[in-house]
Amino acid sequence: MGGTRAAVVVVGSEILLDGREDTNGPLVEETLRREGIQPDLRIVAGDDPSSLGAALRAAAARADVIVVSGGLGPTFDDVTREAASEALGRPLRRSAELAAGLRERYARRGLAPVDSVLRMADLIEGAEPLRNAVGSAPGQFLAGPPVVALLPGVPAELEPMLREEVVPRLRRLFRLAPPSRAVFKIAGRYESQVEGALAPLMKSWKDVDATILASPGEVMLILRAAARDAPALESAAASVRAALGGDIYAESEVGLETAVGRMLAAARLTLATAESCTGGMLGGMITSVAGSSAYYLGGAVAYAGRIKEGWLGVPAETLARHGEVSPQTALAMARGVRERAGSDLGLAVTGVAGPGGGRAGKPVGFVCLAVAAPWGPGERTFSLPGDRATIRLRSCRLALDLLRRVLLLPRGEG
Amino acid sequence: MGGTRAAVVVVGSEILLDGREDTNGPLVEETLRREGIQPDLRIVAGDDPSSLGAALRAAAARADVIVVSGGLGPTFDDVTREAASEALGRPLRRSAELAAGLRERYARRGLAPVDSVLRMADLIEGAEPLRNAVGSAPGQFLAGPPVVALLPGVPAELEPMLREEVVPRLRRLFRLAPPSRAVFKIAGRYESQVEGALAPLMKSWKDVDATILASPGEVMLILRAAARDAPALESAAASVRAALGGDIYAESEVGLETAVGRMLAAARLTLATAESCTGGMLGGMITSVAGSSAYYLGGAVAYAGRIKEGWLGVPAETLARHGEVSPQTALAMARGVRERAGSDLGLAVTGVAGPGGGRAGKPVGFVCLAVAAPWGPGERTFSLPGDRATIRLRSCRLALDLLRRVLLLPRGEG
Repeated sequence: MGGTRAAVVVVGSEILLDGREDTNGPLVEETLRREGIQPDLRIVAGDDPSSLGAALRAAAARADVIVVSGGLGPTFDDVTREAASEALGRPLRRSAELAAGLRERYARRGLAPVDSVLRMADLIEGAEPLRNAVGSAPGQFLAGPPVVALLPGVPAELEPMLREEVVPRLRRLFRLAPPSRAVFKIAGRYESQVEGALAPLMKSWKDVDATILASPGEVMLILRAAARDAPALESAAASVRAALGGDIYAESEVGLETAVGRMLAAARLTLATAESCTGGMLGGMITSVAGSSAYYLGGAVAYAGRIKEGWLGVPAETLARHGEVSPQTALAMARGVRERAGSDLGLAVTGVAGPGGGRAGKPVGFVCLAVAAPWGPGERTFSLPGDRATIRLRSCRLALDLLRRVLLLPRGEG
Repeated sequence: MGGTRAAVVVVGSEILLDGREDTNGPLVEETLRREGIQPDLRIVAGDDPSSLGAALRAAAARADVIVVSGGLGPTFDDVTREAASEALGRPLRRSAELAAGLRERYARRGLAPVDSVLRMADLIEGAEPLRNAVGSAPGQFLAGPPVVALLPGVPAELEPMLREEVVPRLRRLFRLAPPSRAVFKIAGRYESQVEGALAPLMKSWKDVDATILASPGEVMLILRAAARDAPALESAAASVRAALGGDIYAESEVGLETAVGRMLAAARLTLATAESCTGGMLGGMITSVAGSSAYYLGGAVAYAGRIKEGWLGVPAETLARHGEVSPQTALAMARGVRERAGSDLGLAVTGVAGPGGGRAGKPVGFVCLAVAAPWGPGERTFSLPGDRATIRLRSCRLALDLLRRVLLLPRGEG
């Protein structure tokens, strides 16, 4: 899939010394992959010339494209220009035009730029400046070889410069044909089940790469092929659709809460939730979608048993006979919240999230889900693997998936 | 702070080519930092000998300690042993003992190990094997220089091997004196306010490094000093306590939901929540703590106005006169949920999370919080920056912080 090889260098002592998260490396790599450029090394270096120099030399020895983020500002610890100049063996030249722009910018605030600020006008020999629409430090682009892009480290500055300035130049230089790509979001199946379903198909795929990324309660499948292999990709995608059918809830990178929200909005149906072991997470997930007030009315978090009885009207007899975690209680919760909220649909979760509270027949991970709908109820019971956080997240996703499947049923009159 | 310099090499094509998250790099670095070893480079390499070789050579040229994760299994794409052997100029020697162990392990399943499996018995000349308590691939430790540790890539195998096998050896080799460290978790203050409060103090700190890590609604401050500078660290920590006082909610890495949960449990008080814009997130956060059922009874997610009225008893007049997002409504929600759940305390959030719904006087980010307690109510109104997700998370954390501050008040009779 493409012979153009990239190295991404992230300048950030705060990542190595303070444990801050590196978000620039993954962002740059995803952008490059989508253009058909293969990331080959990611190096996080400190902002001293020695560490950064070692990173840049290792990158320059291998890569066709080097993207560097960070270290372009005006302070003493911004040394990316100097380190890149030395590693590439190209001197720095001060751009009169950039320097004039900086002087003007400072003059507007009644200031004169000190010399360390004017270093932002120093370009690696042969490089052109890249416009920074957000901040003051310009980027740099060297047509190479190797191609080198120096970008600011602030994500809000890096992202538009990468997209608007770097990608178009890379496309021109390498005559890139971005790979074809298909995305499937799958719910209600474990990663191993998806793998099992795909294994026989994959044997017949040629020139199509498949990646499975799993998180609790959902699986994402990405197919990639070179642009010229688009027909092979489409045929592989068709076989995925045939094999996974209704387990696929979207063919784009949306979450279940968004996909189900769109279904509710399109059908003009309203929803209320009743949660026990998830404690509000399900409602939190549903309302993470902007505009969810169009279909979500609210919910009850019934953590204590007497709240299930008092707020949701779960009969004391049901609780006593079947227990707080039971399909019967889940169904009574879904019906109760639907009635009390006056919504079209009620969705309920009750379960044992652990680490304590498990017992014979109802171990940690035992979770009951229920939907109350005018066209009849739906319910499912699971034994879920994982720790408390995983069981809770998986429960929310499976509840949304159950609701999705109920919404796909033929709807009689209630 | 210590002259021992480390490079961390993470082997993982799935990170570079598929966008999987690298969790090993940050984990290894945090472990090294706590021992007083300074991470200087993190390199993520593909699992081909050429990319990995380049990474190992760059690491070997600079570092006193190289920790490599991944590529130690039995399959053809596990090439870390071979690449390390070549980069370090030390041949591989098959360990008869390790090979016998592998044969025995396979024999128990009625199998004979193929040659690619026996490669797991190949040690870099001079290295000793490291026990893998979880999986089958042994690690390797070379006393160097440079010191090289080869560890499995599966986090559940890497973590115990790093902690139990590698760290003790590093301590012996380098006679490490782990740095002193103090952690402060701070709520109710923005990062810039914490920086502002600390700036005058920091001028007088000698040999103490400070790091501020902010996430919506809370700030973590880490102070570090070399072991010999422990008194300077303690004096800096004392000045932080004096400057930030009650804004510090913990001196360890716990979340607000845990800290507040401990306060509730210790005081034997119960809590119920009423949420609007956070849609259940607050309850979800509170119940993420194992054992929260000891103090959390449940909550109402009142997303629609009529639920606020019907479920929480917010007077129609309050809603009509002050609006769904108002201090008056927040207080009525807190009182209503407390009464209806029969809890000691009620905690309420209502606000405009955006992106729509803002208006004059109540823009996006306008959030009202209230606590109802037997010893009197507490309430606060904020204008919060950020996008929808940030405003919601910040609202939950500020609500927990308001509750914490109310719990710190002298408690009269209700």
